[in-house]
Amino acid sequence: MAQDEPELASDQENLLHLENIGKGTALTGEISGLVGRSQFFAEFSREDIAVLAEYMDVYRAQPGEIIIREGDTGDFMLLIIEGDVDILKKGVRGEQQHMTSVGPGMTLGEMSMIDGEPRFATCLATRTTVFAVLTRDNMAKIILDHPSLGSKILVKLVTMLSLRLRQTSAKLLHYMEGGR
Amino acid sequence: MAQDEPELASDQENLLHLENIGKGTALTGEISGLVGRSQFFAEFSREDIAVLAEYMDVYRAQPGEIIIREGDTGDFMLLIIEGDVDILKKGVRGEQQHMTSVGPGMTLGEMSMIDGEPRFATCLATRTTVFAVLTRDNMAKIILDHPSLGSKILVKLVTMLSLRLRQTSAKLLHYMEGGR
Repeated sequence: MAQDEPELASDQENLLHLENIGKGTALTGEISGLVGRSQFFAEFSREDIAVLAEYMDVYRAQPGEIIIREGDTGDFMLLIIEGDVDILKKGVRGEQQHMTSVGPGMTLGEMSMIDGEPRFATCLATRTTVFAVLTRDNMAKIILDHPSLGSKILVKLVTMLSLRLRQTSAKLLHYMEGGR
Repeated sequence: MAQDEPELASDQENLLHLENIGKGTALTGEISGLVGRSQFFAEFSREDIAVLAEYMDVYRAQPGEIIIREGDTGDFMLLIIEGDVDILKKGVRGEQQHMTSVGPGMTLGEMSMIDGEPRFATCLATRTTVFAVLTRDNMAKIILDHPSLGSKILVKLVTMLSLRLRQTSAKLLHYMEGGR
């Protein structure tokens, strides 16, 4: 990037405006408690979670605060520990469309954590929301320091993306064929 | 699965009908030669390819032969080394629809290799096609035997799926908003 080129907004800046409430290790118990409700962590042992928590930071967002903004460059994923988050995406006329709402145990932002491309949608806290953040740098550290856990996380990410791609492709084909 | 329940067709059976022309190691040179043309292997060193090739088998399909059949259970991905493959998917009325054609350097079947779900589309050789196969079992062995290479392959898979999911989601939103 040329030096005088304006930098894209980074969603790390959104995090700076939110309350950092410490390392993930302080919340290992809470995160482990979510395992049963979380598609992402369903096959992780308590020990896996304890190691992973060392590489995560925990934040608190108040109702109405933006956690991730569509179009920003992004480099982290997050796990919702408590609260409620609306997923919004701009329509063709620029209006915010509500896509879905998600709660504890759900993960968000995996795509940008991996590929560094701009955020696909906006994530807005609608209640006081506590979430743990895993950055791409820390994901790379896990792969180096704990290769087995690193592979486990990567396999999980591939499986989730694969499932979503199947669902999205099936919906797209349905629309393309003029289905209702 | 109950013993008297009919087993789903597995696409390993399709492979049995094709000509097995040996271990990937015999074709390390050819595979390395594809690196520049392959989205998948773009960041792999020649040494990475040499190790990976040990875990792959190479097959040859004649024009008109099916390599992967939509709906079969699947557990391998493949890299096209030479030839040409049509990707076909059944429409709502059961007719085969041509989705795209792919050639050397392209990978196919990653989703089922990872998640074991039924094949999303049919892959049909339209010319004599040579391809290298990586099964889920061998992917698991790579992760154990060569964790660093295993992570590299997984990161690549996540990145590719993430890109495809972005593209497919964008197309779906376009259709859902009534775009042309």
